[in-house]
Amino acid sequence: MGLGVSRTRRLRVAFQGEQGAFSQIAIQQLLGDSADVVPCTHFEAVFQALAGRRADAAVVPIENTLHGSVHENYDLLLRYKLPILAETNVRIVHNLIGPPGTGFHQVRRVYSHPVALNQCLEFFSQNTQLERVSHYDTAGSVKMLAEQRPPGAAAIASKLAAKLYGCRILRASIEDDRRNFTRFFLLRRPGNAARAKAPAARGYKTSLVFTTRNIPGALFRALSAFALRDLNLAKIESRPLRGKPWEYLFYVDFLGHVDDPVVKNALGHLGELADLLRVLGCYPRSK
Amino acid sequence: MGLGVSRTRRLRVAFQGEQGAFSQIAIQQLLGDSADVVPCTHFEAVFQALAGRRADAAVVPIENTLHGSVHENYDLLLRYKLPILAETNVRIVHNLIGPPGTGFHQVRRVYSHPVALNQCLEFFSQNTQLERVSHYDTAGSVKMLAEQRPPGAAAIASKLAAKLYGCRILRASIEDDRRNFTRFFLLRRPGNAARAKAPAARGYKTSLVFTTRNIPGALFRALSAFALRDLNLAKIESRPLRGKPWEYLFYVDFLGHVDDPVVKNALGHLGELADLLRVLGCYPRSK
Repeated sequence: MGLGVSRTRRLRVAFQGEQGAFSQIAIQQLLGDSADVVPCTHFEAVFQALAGRRADAAVVPIENTLHGSVHENYDLLLRYKLPILAETNVRIVHNLIGPPGTGFHQVRRVYSHPVALNQCLEFFSQNTQLERVSHYDTAGSVKMLAEQRPPGAAAIASKLAAKLYGCRILRASIEDDRRNFTRFFLLRRPGNAARAKAPAARGYKTSLVFTTRNIPGALFRALSAFALRDLNLAKIESRPLRGKPWEYLFYVDFLGHVDDPVVKNALGHLGELADLLRVLGCYPRSK
Repeated sequence: MGLGVSRTRRLRVAFQGEQGAFSQIAIQQLLGDSADVVPCTHFEAVFQALAGRRADAAVVPIENTLHGSVHENYDLLLRYKLPILAETNVRIVHNLIGPPGTGFHQVRRVYSHPVALNQCLEFFSQNTQLERVSHYDTAGSVKMLAEQRPPGAAAIASKLAAKLYGCRILRASIEDDRRNFTRFFLLRRPGNAARAKAPAARGYKTSLVFTTRNIPGALFRALSAFALRDLNLAKIESRPLRGKPWEYLFYVDFLGHVDDPVVKNALGHLGELADLLRVLGCYPRSK
């Protein structure tokens, strides 16, 4: 995967959350079972683990189809300058999970992160005997069940969490909305890998951030750098810069490889029009 | 405020959460103390309360400076067709709140929504005697303290929640990031108010959603409807339509009033280029 790590030892990959978190599913999708995970308590700790060499790579969520972009991680990408090596989309499937020996009809209290509890409202409206109890983490609630075995308790979390903590799925896929996907980035340290090679036409995506001073004609002109070269955008999002009225940060993903001469010209053109331009990474498009 | 409600009775305004939620602060900013609140358990219930006449207006969060757009509410805006009447920005200030008689040095456990707990990490790293306990709601954790008085417990929530439940602020403004703002929309029922009048130049914002089939030149052409008429964009965001590769939904806010002839022309132009175009509302720009 171009992480520049010897093949004789396993990769260490940092992520936020407890083991069994959806970020760990992203790691499996990206790297199979070849990685050791480094759980971190918050997002900046993930970036610090990679920058400080306690991990060889990191995986962070960047946007969710229901909840939007994770601006905090965009800010950390700008601050830590750790390039994006790959992307993947994880479908957020919630399962009702119980410790061994607990059957569905014994369950009275269901622990999970409030966001997960709120994504299973239909399930709870059909099972009014169940009380919802907030916990700090989805996978962490399964870990707590496995360790403390509170009577009549179950949790909502990923299939992976059930497996890791030796628990059972009592009801699978109880989420209200099946269009709930989270997109994750795999990050590496700068310069610790050869750049992904040969610009396979349309097979790569490039993510960048730029700012413009004033939005009326400025964004339109900035986008001409892509439109005039037939480069397809895959994402655009504006974000106001707090304390600087009328200055905006834009997130753009487009299809193309930074080594392609057309892309080089587009970035040169955009650089003329933008106050700040930072390429966050160039990586193979996920299916 | 143009809600078409008799002046002899108080407005009923629906919002998601417990009394004292940040949405209720948005209601105060928008309507002062003249409204009665209708708390709802989830966002769709807020839209249902307004559509079903159990409320005269509704307030919903639409984006946060750290966490991005609330796609769920954009979807509900499209589905329920309840027009936007106003916008406001609320700064998210977290306070450590205790029941009367509890001093800071007695506190050992701090209850709040996990997102709020995670936004006060610096405070917790300086006060390692405090254990974090997840609760389903910020204001709900203050309500619980006031009712149950668990010993040594405090909560993290708004100043308004402290006031409403008769509790005390032990430490004010303990959030890590002061650039944490949430933008809220005030919604009304269609046709129950005269439209905001006279298009005061630049004093109004219009929010709309449109889709295009293919992004390369299509977005650039769509934005020409605004750029060619010197209309300033205040927000643009793309969102992929799941299951329809290469179709995108765009959220756009621009400065202008829908009754302004230039804006009418721009909307006509955009309508020629977009598959779907829906104006979500036209409302005075918040300061």
